[in-house]
Amino acid sequence: MPSFNPPLRVLMGPGPSDVHPRVLAAMARPTIGHLDPVFQTLMEDMKELLRYAFRTKNRLTMPASGPGSVGMETCFVNLVEPGDVVVVCQNGVFGGRMKENVERCGATAVMVTDEWGKGVDLAKIKKAVADNPKTKIIAFVHAETSTGALSDAQAICAFAKEKGLLTIVDAVTSLGGVPLEVDAWGIDAIYSGSQKCLSCTPGLSPVSFSARAEAVIKGRNRKVQSWFMDMSLIMNYWEAQGGARTYHHTAPINSLYGLHESLVMLKEEGLENSWARHRKNHLALRAGLEAMGLELLVAEHERLPQLNAIKVPAGTDEAAVRKRLLADYNLEIGAGLGALAGKVWRVGLMGSSSTANHVTLCLAALENVLPAAGAKIKTGVAGPAARAVLFP
Amino acid sequence: MPSFNPPLRVLMGPGPSDVHPRVLAAMARPTIGHLDPVFQTLMEDMKELLRYAFRTKNRLTMPASGPGSVGMETCFVNLVEPGDVVVVCQNGVFGGRMKENVERCGATAVMVTDEWGKGVDLAKIKKAVADNPKTKIIAFVHAETSTGALSDAQAICAFAKEKGLLTIVDAVTSLGGVPLEVDAWGIDAIYSGSQKCLSCTPGLSPVSFSARAEAVIKGRNRKVQSWFMDMSLIMNYWEAQGGARTYHHTAPINSLYGLHESLVMLKEEGLENSWARHRKNHLALRAGLEAMGLELLVAEHERLPQLNAIKVPAGTDEAAVRKRLLADYNLEIGAGLGALAGKVWRVGLMGSSSTANHVTLCLAALENVLPAAGAKIKTGVAGPAARAVLFP
Repeated sequence: MPSFNPPLRVLMGPGPSDVHPRVLAAMARPTIGHLDPVFQTLMEDMKELLRYAFRTKNRLTMPASGPGSVGMETCFVNLVEPGDVVVVCQNGVFGGRMKENVERCGATAVMVTDEWGKGVDLAKIKKAVADNPKTKIIAFVHAETSTGALSDAQAICAFAKEKGLLTIVDAVTSLGGVPLEVDAWGIDAIYSGSQKCLSCTPGLSPVSFSARAEAVIKGRNRKVQSWFMDMSLIMNYWEAQGGARTYHHTAPINSLYGLHESLVMLKEEGLENSWARHRKNHLALRAGLEAMGLELLVAEHERLPQLNAIKVPAGTDEAAVRKRLLADYNLEIGAGLGALAGKVWRVGLMGSSSTANHVTLCLAALENVLPAAGAKIKTGVAGPAARAVLFP
Repeated sequence: MPSFNPPLRVLMGPGPSDVHPRVLAAMARPTIGHLDPVFQTLMEDMKELLRYAFRTKNRLTMPASGPGSVGMETCFVNLVEPGDVVVVCQNGVFGGRMKENVERCGATAVMVTDEWGKGVDLAKIKKAVADNPKTKIIAFVHAETSTGALSDAQAICAFAKEKGLLTIVDAVTSLGGVPLEVDAWGIDAIYSGSQKCLSCTPGLSPVSFSARAEAVIKGRNRKVQSWFMDMSLIMNYWEAQGGARTYHHTAPINSLYGLHESLVMLKEEGLENSWARHRKNHLALRAGLEAMGLELLVAEHERLPQLNAIKVPAGTDEAAVRKRLLADYNLEIGAGLGALAGKVWRVGLMGSSSTANHVTLCLAALENVLPAAGAKIKTGVAGPAARAVLFP
């Protein structure tokens, strides 16, 4: 059996995004032991860099040793106990996954549902909390990867604080791409993914817990149901208590090299600059799409810059478009998920995939491919429209 | 903050082992999407390569997307339900972790304990099963990383089969290093780690489930408590059902490139040749250690070739030895864990760290460092003793 040599793709789907050569090079650095004193300096750096990205001073800030789903489950299994009531907002795929997590903890999920493609409606949350006075936690997705909708995390967290409730926030797609303020907004538990706007390889999930969440974890009535995700054990691995770290699991060393490098790059660019870059490239893509006559699913005030859900025009062979883009341009865009399957394409402009070249290539490739797949579009106008935004 | 540039260590601890440049190079190949059709060929190759390494035809054979602890928990949460009785063998650290897993599933762990440094005693297992007629599963560690003891997996599994019980086997340190026959021995659920005798980077945990275990998973009364580790969902991600894979989580793409390359290398060498290499290098190390006057903890018939627990001689500053080896030779060896802390060193000869040069360097470095740390050893004899085994 031969070695695996992947093709060189342009990743503009819902993640992973293009990984910068500096991050790939970091992944290939020599492995050292996870108890090596030098590795501990990497762990300390990593916590500092994640605190920078999350805008937090939270002590418990580190990458969980698994993909975003591990970050999600880490937040739920540590904060939720059997019998608890959790208000779960669902406006896409990932709210449904939160519900699964709550129920598998033996707790009750009170669902607040919004249309796919819209942000979470705070009025509905307020009603759900009023109707369920035993509510302990509000859980929601900041940036829905399945639809491209942004929710108002600041307002939801302010309401939770007012009511003395904890918040669990899915920031898998938001971290690094749009403003996110863990401390200023008072978020209690948050998780993200390495492979979206951080543009690292998939497989790690940064998490952060507020002091209030940490106290809840320490005051639990029973052990966390997952040994692997038990923060009371993990915190002693990532945080030396009384001078010595306690062995828990073997950290994914080389993946951490990669995440470290991607966070160093984020800090070099500056978080605000990264947000501005994501916004600008989104506006350029949008200008080109609209010039072509294509529409975005999400209303302007709730649109994520890093994840653009484009409505498939009537009469278009949706799958054929994705297939041609991949075959002819090595360009990956995403299909719709769940209720949106066949109805949208999802174009990611995340991290290293948020550049003028990505926008320009994607628009040109769409313009070249759409007519043969049955879409009626205006040609010759997308490029100039995008250029006017990119290079004003 | 600067990029992280690790030192070039020689990894002879309990894992990670030295990662071959081919595997590191694979880690740095361009990331592709986890739903890319080309990635599906990698997944298919991966399953075939793992079946080769595990000696199994099990359909459900794949790497869990996390370190060995995730493989362990995946086996337990899928097969154990509340109220079940599991006989758990403990002869080191990792049996204790199995107990934690069983109890966090709401089941009862009947403990069978053996001295640290000895293999699991089948007679004690027989008694435990006789005393607990509701036993459903026997769980044990094939190769105890904390002590270097090998247990007779074949005999234990034969007994389990005879009694109609399931087996869960920890093969984190055994896979690729010593004979292991999943089908021939009738193992029902097994997990390993990427960073031991496979010499990949840490962060993936190959697992395999027999048809009988798969039927138990499908016949469960309640959902698996972990959404992330629920095999009924994961199997639809790794195994196309009716032609299409179902999205579960985002696979750790580049880590899988690395594991693929390490398994290709294992297949190129041949599994039996890998076992023989591990054995030969162990015998050479042992000859050198004994010539020096050092003793191994584990009796010969239960000794793991890939993990050598060496008794710390009386009057020796145990930690100083490890510190000097790391500072002067960049050579990492392991400390004792739990009951063996301060009493042994653990020297790994795993995967790419099982070579004549590793044996030779380690013996020479020990010979140079031990006297100053207070150990009385014979000098000038270890090298020739090892050489006689390595180059007869």
